[in-house]
Amino acid sequence: MATAPSAKLTPLLKDELDIVIPTIRNLDFLEMWRPFFEQYHLIIVQDGDPSKKIRVPDGFDYQLYNRNDVNRILGPNASCISFKDSACRCFGYLVSKKKYIFTIDDDCFVAKDPSGKEINALEQHIKNLLTPSTTHFFNTLYDPYREGADFVRGYPFSLREGAPTAVSHGLWLNIPDYDAPTQLVKPLERNTRYVDAVMTVPKGTLFPMCGMNLAFDRELIGPAMYFGLMGDGQPVGRYDDMWAGWCMKVICDHLGLGVKTGLPYIWHSKASNPFVNLKKEYKGIFWQEKAIPFFQSVSLPKECSSVEKCYLALAGEVKSKLGEVDPYFIKLADAMVTWIEAWKMVNSPGEKPAMTSLPNATSK
Amino acid sequence: MATAPSAKLTPLLKDELDIVIPTIRNLDFLEMWRPFFEQYHLIIVQDGDPSKKIRVPDGFDYQLYNRNDVNRILGPNASCISFKDSACRCFGYLVSKKKYIFTIDDDCFVAKDPSGKEINALEQHIKNLLTPSTTHFFNTLYDPYREGADFVRGYPFSLREGAPTAVSHGLWLNIPDYDAPTQLVKPLERNTRYVDAVMTVPKGTLFPMCGMNLAFDRELIGPAMYFGLMGDGQPVGRYDDMWAGWCMKVICDHLGLGVKTGLPYIWHSKASNPFVNLKKEYKGIFWQEKAIPFFQSVSLPKECSSVEKCYLALAGEVKSKLGEVDPYFIKLADAMVTWIEAWKMVNSPGEKPAMTSLPNATSK
Repeated sequence: MATAPSAKLTPLLKDELDIVIPTIRNLDFLEMWRPFFEQYHLIIVQDGDPSKKIRVPDGFDYQLYNRNDVNRILGPNASCISFKDSACRCFGYLVSKKKYIFTIDDDCFVAKDPSGKEINALEQHIKNLLTPSTTHFFNTLYDPYREGADFVRGYPFSLREGAPTAVSHGLWLNIPDYDAPTQLVKPLERNTRYVDAVMTVPKGTLFPMCGMNLAFDRELIGPAMYFGLMGDGQPVGRYDDMWAGWCMKVICDHLGLGVKTGLPYIWHSKASNPFVNLKKEYKGIFWQEKAIPFFQSVSLPKECSSVEKCYLALAGEVKSKLGEVDPYFIKLADAMVTWIEAWKMVNSPGEKPAMTSLPNATSK
Repeated sequence: MATAPSAKLTPLLKDELDIVIPTIRNLDFLEMWRPFFEQYHLIIVQDGDPSKKIRVPDGFDYQLYNRNDVNRILGPNASCISFKDSACRCFGYLVSKKKYIFTIDDDCFVAKDPSGKEINALEQHIKNLLTPSTTHFFNTLYDPYREGADFVRGYPFSLREGAPTAVSHGLWLNIPDYDAPTQLVKPLERNTRYVDAVMTVPKGTLFPMCGMNLAFDRELIGPAMYFGLMGDGQPVGRYDDMWAGWCMKVICDHLGLGVKTGLPYIWHSKASNPFVNLKKEYKGIFWQEKAIPFFQSVSLPKECSSVEKCYLALAGEVKSKLGEVDPYFIKLADAMVTWIEAWKMVNSPGEKPAMTSLPNATSK
């Protein structure tokens, strides 16, 4: 007997995950994602001019927040949310009421695996998040929790339970996530290699986290997912996700949480302008040479037993150590504190009911 | 004009690399490797009964050492070379005069990539060794030195030169390298997944190094590639390569050298007996729970500027810290010191000419 054509399978974590999309344009890209996203709730963070009307294809369940909503909901704390930069996406993490977040850029489309099958990126992210990470020891056959795989000889049995996974970082076919200098040097390079693996980024190792195709457990690590001060009025751009990645990784290492990278791939459709990017990035290119050693050596006090506490301690370290590099980091450290205030305000138990209704945001 | 059929291309590093094979049987497996190995020199280390005649297929350039040769060449220091265990392979590393070593087990055959093409494992290992490692920062798009790949946005420019690669650890299709308990639980599990990637094992991260399909730069790391005391008269087996891997990794991290894992795959033809393996492994399964934290926390003094010095310092730490776990580690620590003596004896400049001739080993 054939299944009735109208019967839809309930996707994994349907009511426990929000999809966060920062955008400045109509969201036609969602058409391609319809079979995978349609049953989830979307949080759209409209960047830039709030008077502009953004079109969302019919049939999606979403809430759209523009700058006026950000200001109204956060009040003076809205200063920590970037304007005219996709860093504003972290506002969506803050107002979500769900345990999990998947965030994707609006120039990312459904990729195909080598057999030609369309990749359900969200499903793979969820699998990554729902299985442990191998944070404390490296498994040479990649993800041991995947079907058909296991821990290899010499992997200590006491470490085989792994660590809870906080973050799943997905990759990109077609346009690789290069910096402006590499874009300029290799304008035609495309990523065509599908690597069928999920890796844990080991404890103590930093990595460049890209915000284009990213999922995380908001309850485990949400307050560390602040995308910093970028865009309008700021001296730097395109380091929002990197900043979040460095902060998040240091905190995950401290708290014993896992971070994965690899599958799933999305199809990244077009390269951004390398000249514009260079202008945004160039200070970051200098600063990261100081910031990376800082994050590689920073250690958090044992008392820091929650993400919020870790994040505030880290903000203090940023202020005192990176503040010497440029005054921007003092402003950023202050914004990190503001972000935690905003997070607590919106996410404190007493505030939840009021925030759930969010009467003025565009909802459908 | 067609190339004359007899013309053979000179393979990479033809005169700078030895292939080391430990064995107890005729080396018919070499037939399958003929197109890839025939122009290289082989060092065959015959395990067990030296009176047994081992057949090597015609046309290979090799030197075969049996236990009598080991005893004759090393004298009293021969005690550090295991007997009746493939750990004896490290004798081959010691007597080699080449810069690079590739070692392979005699139950490993040529694998095919997903397109059906036979994989030249040795060539891939050489590529891995001749390009740097990304030891200090994680590149999400895998090996940035591979054609068509690069460093992603957020990868510090000052780290893009990478670190010299000391070790290339290859993987296995078909029979995965599982420990006895996993073999017992999953007797039918086969590795069919070809992951098209080479990873650097980051600084500060240990991994289970398997000796089945392994290449290294002997000049950079040779003296750390001691495979310990296993087999006849020893309480443990199947931890020879693991031991070497832990020691080697700690020393590479100290000296700023890189270790890669991933491609190339070989075809591992048959699983060893899990009951026999369990008997060999079971003490190791306990001990590794102590050994891993030891290696994760051991630090070498700054004065240790050479592999030999590092290795002797590590032997001292093994004796004092792991000696408490079991007297075996005291014996092993002593053997580590003996190994360095043997290495220096055979590899000191004055000894080179005498050793090159090695008059009594079976040569062809």
